Amino acid sequence: MDVLPLGLWLDLAGTFVFALSGAMLAVQRRLDLFGITVLAVSAGLFGGMLRDVALGATPPAALEDTRYLLATFAAAAVIFFGHRLMDRLLRPVMVLDALGLGLFAVSGCRKALLAGLDPLAAIILGILTAVGGGALRDMLVAEVPHVLRDEVYALAALVGAGIVAAGYAWGWSDAWAAGAGVVIAAALRIVSVWRGWRAPRAPGS
Amino acid sequence: MDVLPLGLWLDLAGTFVFALSGAMLAVQRRLDLFGITVLAVSAGLFGGMLRDVALGATPPAALEDTRYLLATFAAAAVIFFGHRLMDRLLRPVMVLDALGLGLFAVSGCRKALLAGLDPLAAIILGILTAVGGGALRDMLVAEVPHVLRDEVYALAALVGAGIVAAGYAWGWSDAWAAGAGVVIAAALRIVSVWRGWRAPRAPGS
Amino acid sequence: MDVLPLGLWLDLAGTFVFALSGAMLAVQRRLDLFGITVLAVSAGLFGGMLRDVALGATPPAALEDTRYLLATFAAAAVIFFGHRLMDRLLRPVMVLDALGLGLFAVSGCRKALLAGLDPLAAIILGILTAVGGGALRDMLVAEVPHVLRDEVYALAALVGAGIVAAGYAWGWSDAWAAGAGVVIAAALRIVSVWRGWRAPRAPGS
Repeated sequence: MDVLPLGLWLDLAGTFVFALSGAMLAVQRRLDLFGITVLAVSAGLFGGMLRDVALGATPPAALEDTRYLLATFAAAAVIFFGHRLMDRLLRPVMVLDALGLGLFAVSGCRKALLAGLDPLAAIILGILTAVGGGALRDMLVAEVPHVLRDEVYALAALVGAGIVAAGYAWGWSDAWAAGAGVVIAAALRIVSVWRGWRAPRAPGS
Repeated sequence: MDVLPLGLWLDLAGTFVFALSGAMLAVQRRLDLFGITVLAVSAGLFGGMLRDVALGATPPAALEDTRYLLATFAAAAVIFFGHRLMDRLLRPVMVLDALGLGLFAVSGCRKALLAGLDPLAAIILGILTAVGGGALRDMLVAEVPHVLRDEVYALAALVGAGIVAAGYAWGWSDAWAAGAGVVIAAALRIVSVWRGWRAPRAPGS
Repeated sequence: MDVLPLGLWLDLAGTFVFALSGAMLAVQRRLDLFGITVLAVSAGLFGGMLRDVALGATPPAALEDTRYLLATFAAAAVIFFGHRLMDRLLRPVMVLDALGLGLFAVSGCRKALLAGLDPLAAIILGILTAVGGGALRDMLVAEVPHVLRDEVYALAALVGAGIVAAGYAWGWSDAWAAGAGVVIAAALRIVSVWRGWRAPRAPGS
């Protein structure tokens, strides 16, 4: 059986679920088929392209490997025909976005570590990868991005990327560290929304 | 007679007409001379800079070759003094934007093919080049970009870039393929606005 | 005594004051601790990352050198605890933004000159560096960026970068040219706001 390498698997899965979140947001805004596709592509590919350009790994993987684009088109098609099913889920955009956040935080941090960046820089690049696609998606529909409005968003990405960096430093199994990073980052994000965790405001603001 | 190479000609023409569209939008928003210049420069240069950075062709042509900047300044001056003439045209921002869309879709796809990307990646980069400057222009004035709102926008860029990629694969004359790509992409966009073509919405949305 | 090299000093100072401006804006928008941090990081790091990516100097300094990130965190902490003190200043976001504008215009232009770009291209890159972080900061909170709304903004960055380029061409002392560029650009911006300088609108608009 042919198995995708871990980095590619994380990347394609993150691309697909972020593209789902973009397409779902487009449906909620009553955009048409093209708007759905554009928002799916933007949300799915932008974070990874930022990461690759910042690493000097040009052209970005999303341009060189057709499967990235196909993943976003598949997501647009799934939502175009199946959004009513999705709607029955509780807050589908948020849940998909949380999963994509975890996947890209981990994939961005891993790729940066493999490119030789030191752990702190790799964690920052993981956060940038995770936050980039969703921020573009929200700005395109003229919304203030979640990363600014929501309490535990960049923090969840930080935790996911941090687990990968710790695993790399201490020699954990690559796949286990990646899996733990994805699951814990996504869970942290979802629980924070569900429980309504709040961060402190500046005193007197 | 000294003739510009085709790639540079396409790029400068696209830069000029996109800069015109940015300057015209700035006048409609009642921005002053500086706002007009900034929006002309942003709309004219951003798409090509995205393209060059994604190809790893740094510093971008728009920084290395003074003529790009001069083209955007010329466009800002033309609009500053001549916008009332432009206003008599039917929907000048839309028409200029459509022309720039075709020019940049073709120039982005050509440059990517010449850099050795495969056809599908080159088409995507063409779309990104074509859509980038206009999206930044619209986001800077806090508008939802055309590429999301309008039916046939990214699709027109796709057709223009696709013609170039097909011509490259099948050995058509470079200049003819480029010309056909520009004209057909721009015409497709203009006709779609004029006839009010609509794409389907997601069923039940 | 160990002294920072001039380029790094300019960069870190620009990062710190732009991060202060971002954090201050976040407090005014009543964002919480995380929103403050994200806006501080975005405003502080984005312009320099644009510059480095456009120069092909990847990974960007802001990722490789931990002190950049620490500078933005320090700024977020300063504002979180001290924003009421800041508020007593006259228009703190504007003043900090003006100082950051001067620092980044100078640092962007210097780095581009040292990388071998010709003076005009270096000036443009200086403007892009100076304007990038503030534009992202404003767009993230769904505001039209100052660079579009305000009369003397890109122009102040142009003057600061131009002084550096002139000093480089005519062999002035590096530190003096840089200092003059920062002070004059920031002063020009502040005086223009204070005196309410207006640029002309397009005739008949």
